[in-house]
Amino acid sequence: MEKIIGVVGGAGPFAGLDLLGKILDQTISERDQDHLTVISLSQPNQLPDRTRFLLGATAVNPAHAIFNQLQQLERAGADIAAIPCNTAHAAPIFNCVLEKLGAVGSRIRFLNMLAETVSYIRQQHPDRQRIGILSTTGTYQAGIYPHLLKAAGYAAVIPDLHLQTELIHPAIYDPQYGIKTVGKNAVRARDALLQGVNDLQQKGAEAIILGCTEIPLALPEKWIGDLVIIDPTLVLARALIREANPDKLRPLS
Amino acid sequence: MEKIIGVVGGAGPFAGLDLLGKILDQTISERDQDHLTVISLSQPNQLPDRTRFLLGATAVNPAHAIFNQLQQLERAGADIAAIPCNTAHAAPIFNCVLEKLGAVGSRIRFLNMLAETVSYIRQQHPDRQRIGILSTTGTYQAGIYPHLLKAAGYAAVIPDLHLQTELIHPAIYDPQYGIKTVGKNAVRARDALLQGVNDLQQKGAEAIILGCTEIPLALPEKWIGDLVIIDPTLVLARALIREANPDKLRPLS
Repeated sequence: MEKIIGVVGGAGPFAGLDLLGKILDQTISERDQDHLTVISLSQPNQLPDRTRFLLGATAVNPAHAIFNQLQQLERAGADIAAIPCNTAHAAPIFNCVLEKLGAVGSRIRFLNMLAETVSYIRQQHPDRQRIGILSTTGTYQAGIYPHLLKAAGYAAVIPDLHLQTELIHPAIYDPQYGIKTVGKNAVRARDALLQGVNDLQQKGAEAIILGCTEIPLALPEKWIGDLVIIDPTLVLARALIREANPDKLRPLS
Repeated sequence: MEKIIGVVGGAGPFAGLDLLGKILDQTISERDQDHLTVISLSQPNQLPDRTRFLLGATAVNPAHAIFNQLQQLERAGADIAAIPCNTAHAAPIFNCVLEKLGAVGSRIRFLNMLAETVSYIRQQHPDRQRIGILSTTGTYQAGIYPHLLKAAGYAAVIPDLHLQTELIHPAIYDPQYGIKTVGKNAVRARDALLQGVNDLQQKGAEAIILGCTEIPLALPEKWIGDLVIIDPTLVLARALIREANPDKLRPLS
């Protein structure tokens, strides 16, 4: 029995859209009716900013909104769900969501995009050991990826704080040129991110995780030179299909 | 009070995705939280093919599935809704949905993409009187657009039956090269559609409605030479924003 996919899509809305597109792209299909059932709830004005919470700029934990939206998705029929937002996977947010789901006896299976990403690297790129990360400053400060990667036996490579705050974070958030404002055509943001890629490679990275779901919008490459570029949104799309109906998961190209 | 948008997204799934993207693109926003709440239900395996019903290949009226999905969206909180599928607007389908919504006293406002499209042409392109239509054979046989356009005082221009069935419909539906299979990168489908555009122009069309929501995926142009190209998905995205919160509707570029 094919399971129904739920997507918490508002964090941010373009990342939610990107996940929905990647679910379609990664599904084996010849006709409309072959595609999986996907319920997407994009409710960004009810989903407080994740980075602001992690940096202490607000006390409102977005976990409560994420939990509410997961409950809505479950009531609408979703069996499995995910949120395409790396920052939302920081322990103070993600664990709070899991606790709240547990407390109400939710039966939705809430996938962990970051755990899926580390597992994907292990399976698909066993030769890569030094993993770079580009992310929001929220994800950066929370040390989410370095923690996960080190626990899995990898070396984590991150930008220095100046590059992180002056170049990488604004590429995502700047109200003039950031990806959250401009979307896919964020040329200046792309340049900044490519500088980040270059910096991480100089520091020995062999693969780079695009650790904010806005980044792949402006940086869609799978390889940059010798570097493997890892897109957690793509990994998550494949994990959702695998859980919904593994027979429909397109082989990796 | 901002209204919540519901999308019946599985007809087809790529057209649903395209509508969601156009809603984002047409919304005035600087940050995630500025975007509207959108609930999308893409359940293609519960949404029988519209063209097959209109052509008599199946007795199952997709109206029942569309109604059920609208009910689900309403229960999830949607105030206004639409289905980005031209063929679903044929009277035997669309009127049946409206009747069923009326019978249960639904309070969802179900927009009519085709009526919005004719109204858009009148407002934005008052100099255009002869309107060509590219569509599925279901929409073609049902005469949906010609009927609407003539009632509004326009001349409707359609391909001859051979071109329609041998070139235009397969560009959408062919299991090898059709847009429903290949998505945006449907090169052969695009060539076929451009032949259709050319044919309609030869017959005097001054504007062309892309009367199947898959077509704009492969034919994103707003103008082809002197021809205005009308994308009902874009018109629908703007109509949904207008109904949800007119202050957030981006001015036409």
